[in-house]
Amino acid sequence: MKQSELSTLVQPFHVMELVKHANALEAQGKPVIHLSIGEPDFPMPEPVQQALVQAISTNKTRYTAALGLPELRQAVSDYYRSAFQVQVPANQIVITSGASAALMYACLALVNPGNEVLLADPGYPCNKTFIQMTGGTPAFVQTAEEENFQPSWADLSKHWTEKTAGVLLASPNNPTGTQLTATAMKEITAGVATRGGFIIVDEIYQSLCYDHPAQSVLQVTGAPSEQMPLLVINSFSKYFGMTGLRLGWMVVPENLLPAIERFAQNLSICPNTPAQWAALACFQAETLAICEERRKLFKARRDFMVHALPGAGIELHSTPDSAFYIYAKSPYSSEDYCKDLLEKAWVCAVPGKDFSQYRGNEMMRFSYANSMENLQIAIERINQFNQTGSPKAV
Amino acid sequence: MKQSELSTLVQPFHVMELVKHANALEAQGKPVIHLSIGEPDFPMPEPVQQALVQAISTNKTRYTAALGLPELRQAVSDYYRSAFQVQVPANQIVITSGASAALMYACLALVNPGNEVLLADPGYPCNKTFIQMTGGTPAFVQTAEEENFQPSWADLSKHWTEKTAGVLLASPNNPTGTQLTATAMKEITAGVATRGGFIIVDEIYQSLCYDHPAQSVLQVTGAPSEQMPLLVINSFSKYFGMTGLRLGWMVVPENLLPAIERFAQNLSICPNTPAQWAALACFQAETLAICEERRKLFKARRDFMVHALPGAGIELHSTPDSAFYIYAKSPYSSEDYCKDLLEKAWVCAVPGKDFSQYRGNEMMRFSYANSMENLQIAIERINQFNQTGSPKAV
Repeated sequence: MKQSELSTLVQPFHVMELVKHANALEAQGKPVIHLSIGEPDFPMPEPVQQALVQAISTNKTRYTAALGLPELRQAVSDYYRSAFQVQVPANQIVITSGASAALMYACLALVNPGNEVLLADPGYPCNKTFIQMTGGTPAFVQTAEEENFQPSWADLSKHWTEKTAGVLLASPNNPTGTQLTATAMKEITAGVATRGGFIIVDEIYQSLCYDHPAQSVLQVTGAPSEQMPLLVINSFSKYFGMTGLRLGWMVVPENLLPAIERFAQNLSICPNTPAQWAALACFQAETLAICEERRKLFKARRDFMVHALPGAGIELHSTPDSAFYIYAKSPYSSEDYCKDLLEKAWVCAVPGKDFSQYRGNEMMRFSYANSMENLQIAIERINQFNQTGSPKAV
Repeated sequence: MKQSELSTLVQPFHVMELVKHANALEAQGKPVIHLSIGEPDFPMPEPVQQALVQAISTNKTRYTAALGLPELRQAVSDYYRSAFQVQVPANQIVITSGASAALMYACLALVNPGNEVLLADPGYPCNKTFIQMTGGTPAFVQTAEEENFQPSWADLSKHWTEKTAGVLLASPNNPTGTQLTATAMKEITAGVATRGGFIIVDEIYQSLCYDHPAQSVLQVTGAPSEQMPLLVINSFSKYFGMTGLRLGWMVVPENLLPAIERFAQNLSICPNTPAQWAALACFQAETLAICEERRKLFKARRDFMVHALPGAGIELHSTPDSAFYIYAKSPYSSEDYCKDLLEKAWVCAVPGKDFSQYRGNEMMRFSYANSMENLQIAIERINQFNQTGSPKAV
């Protein structure tokens, strides 16, 4: 039995070793503070929880249509209209098993073996895997801290070759917590359309933003079409706090729907049924108010961390205004520094290696999906460690 | 924007058009009886439902490990020991988003572009898609009704070429409701191992069997290993009635685990979390007793259908002893016959086209995942239609 070439090509998450180490230290009684986690520290909003219990109690547990519950597709369409003032017909919205399945269907439908897809570096580690699984090749476009780690069309077009099939970007981006500007979105979508390529925009952290109203590329382009070859990926995981429910959605041009439906039927059958019914409650005023309160808490944490990190010896050159991540310069090799910080100060932040092909070892990611109290303790410990190289008494 | 070659290669489920037609007739008030559905007609067992509500109420809604909850992996291992008297270490069991994700990880880990994988024909339509998505080619091995639509090693080895990477079989099989014998399993697994290939056995209908005790290929081979290159696919959907929860599992050789873990991390993050906690309740005595009662109801329906169909003019040459399907000879072109039967007798059974490259238009599938009362009405209508070509008064 031989393993496939793909299985050796696909990278593990290097951070998992660090997280295992952190868990082992915790099991020994060390008070580790996790700034490593890509998951909100809040439970599911109560109305969503109640809707989930209600769905189960009324036996809404059988298969749904492969593209998702019509009611939920309509609710997402309504949400785009009410929250973003964009018209996206419900039939262009596909419900998926997390943003993961959406990214997979998008790449399977659009990338041929031998194609290249442009990715902003740093970025979400799994993006390259979705491309690799089609036989395509990720082509990483290095971005600069001073430009908030987001590429311009000028950057992307420089890397466009005859092999290039399209572009996959994220705004807000993980690990940087930064967004594309509306101007950049406009130039990039127009540029890509002119080249006859596709553009996938991951907006899973869309409403977790702190300095400006939440935005969508759809506000710039309108609904995707054959002329605007755009796919937008979104998720109920982050803003709506449904991580373990594995539910997301995608917005696609109508002409791609038959292909996406075939992939969904064949590869997943359908997304989790009770989660789909529960997600209808995400768009109720009561739930949105809870999510908005949580957004404000994240903003306060962001404000704290952005000011406190430089004081504790961690340089920032970008302006993280979204998601719950800060991507910062590591005092020395981030692989070593993150290990030392964990072992000596019991703070678990993660090295850049998983997110970047270029400067991963210079950079590190802090997640502020943790309580303000824990963030304050973490900053004290980081400061102490950076000043003395030894742990603070706890 | 060009669509990928794969997206045109992947087939839609042709049956969906028929099902849409059935739903339209139903919306017009026609009393359609669905014998088309691959889903038990029972709700989730009560203890599983309660466990699911309990998981949600206690906020067990965050990400789990990519390979699944350790508790559930252990419970599946214990179940193999108690129900099948086989020892499979918990760490060789991977929890997945339905059997679909398991089949996907298996093919991604084992099939290279240009490889061929042998499939029994007729079989589950999506199997070919999982192979095609790797760049591999499904090689269909025609099986005979008189041999219960299951291949022998002699059949498979005849199709083995230098391109062949392995074999994917199902026992019980969909659409035929038939199983591999223990002797065939022994010969096939030994033969495949000798050739240096892999064998994937889909056992998702394992415990829905009516003439002999449920069996697993693992009873023949023991736990998979480098020497026994076997992957077993299973599901909580059918016997345990959790279809819309999208939860399955796979048993893999230890040396494949790192690759499977990388695919699970990158492509899914984790299976649905509350579903995983709920699935622990599947192995409680109370749940197993409910599932056993349901199995007996399925057996009674199977007995009824196997005797009633020939009397109503539908020939059977195989002995369906498992799952909830009967694959039978269609009186004429099954695409036409199934359409006529739906329109004139309001019985929705499905043509063989989705399941077979060879004789799909000669054959059709009946599902008996419907009440005995409905099955009886369906048989009366089929009989009437076959005798007179006109609908029975309802």
